[in-house]
Amino acid sequence: MSLIPDISPLTLNRLSVYLRCLRILEAEGETKVSSGALADRFELSPAQIRKDLAHFGEFGVRGVGYDVESLGAHLHELLGLNAQHNLVVVGIGNLGSALCSFLGFNDSSFRVVAGVDADPERVGKQVGDITVQPLEALETVVESAGIEMGVLTIPPEAATQCYERLVASGIRSILNFAAVQLPHRSDVRVKNVDFRVFLEELAFFRRDPS
Amino acid sequence: MSLIPDISPLTLNRLSVYLRCLRILEAEGETKVSSGALADRFELSPAQIRKDLAHFGEFGVRGVGYDVESLGAHLHELLGLNAQHNLVVVGIGNLGSALCSFLGFNDSSFRVVAGVDADPERVGKQVGDITVQPLEALETVVESAGIEMGVLTIPPEAATQCYERLVASGIRSILNFAAVQLPHRSDVRVKNVDFRVFLEELAFFRRDPS
Repeated sequence: MSLIPDISPLTLNRLSVYLRCLRILEAEGETKVSSGALADRFELSPAQIRKDLAHFGEFGVRGVGYDVESLGAHLHELLGLNAQHNLVVVGIGNLGSALCSFLGFNDSSFRVVAGVDADPERVGKQVGDITVQPLEALETVVESAGIEMGVLTIPPEAATQCYERLVASGIRSILNFAAVQLPHRSDVRVKNVDFRVFLEELAFFRRDPS
Repeated sequence: MSLIPDISPLTLNRLSVYLRCLRILEAEGETKVSSGALADRFELSPAQIRKDLAHFGEFGVRGVGYDVESLGAHLHELLGLNAQHNLVVVGIGNLGSALCSFLGFNDSSFRVVAGVDADPERVGKQVGDITVQPLEALETVVESAGIEMGVLTIPPEAATQCYERLVASGIRSILNFAAVQLPHRSDVRVKNVDFRVFLEELAFFRRDPS
């Protein structure tokens, strides 16, 4: 494993986007792409692409561009996607059910291997590849299924307690969809997702179409 | 309406986050907050806060900080949240259903006023405040309900066609959850959301816990 320089979540999100774009080009049979062509095709910034990738080594060849397959493989490894990360989804309502069946959460890098819910009516239900288990079983499930990431798709009032239980079970990576500020712990990484932020971005640009 | 300087989606997303933080402080009865205190409490960068807000005028008073209520009100207006934006959700599966009932999509700034689905079994179903209508009615629904934003929560293979229909109906703001690259149009703003990117960020930090 090579040394990884400091990298911000924003840079990281761009690397994810580049990887996605490279996979599309690869599927289309492209073998080389310049930063300019990549930027044009996917509405990205060529200077930003060059800057982001230059952080991690010399990938491009001047006048030729990047090798689509090898750059994709490198980003894949850099993002930690060579390993399979097992997920538990906590809360199998509509959003939890959608995520359990989501293809991007069920491939060679990520896999929803368990789902738990407090509602007895949901327990035993088949969602995607999993059978919903009772919330009480959370700790057992985490241990027995080799889970390393938790996804919180429960109401805000239950989120903090479930967070604590996940952390106590050894989980250090949490994707949180509940509208609540989880307690900070320096050894746990929480990624909060608030759909509202996306709408606010769209609302802003309605004021000032450009 | 004051002149709005150039602003990137990333800055905009941070303004949304600041607004959210200010609302929490306001609910707690705080009237003043310094950039340092705001940063500490919500794990933000004080320098970034000062820089972002300085773009839009002189809000802070040195040694006193920001007025929680008036800064909140200003950001609210700046983000275009004083108007109510009506939404149509296209595709009322699990994710679409979750969004129809999501509080952040149903307040004085945003409101899901319609939902459509191609599946006859879903038509007529009550979800949140709306009754699911058939996909064929999309254009009629957009016009009659004064809709200005579309949310695509349909399978990728149907997304492009629904996008074109929304645009033809006059919609210029689209929140897209479908894993597909929609055709670029300079007069339409599309915000793509891919849950996978959030997991990739968590996966990266598992390699290099800090």
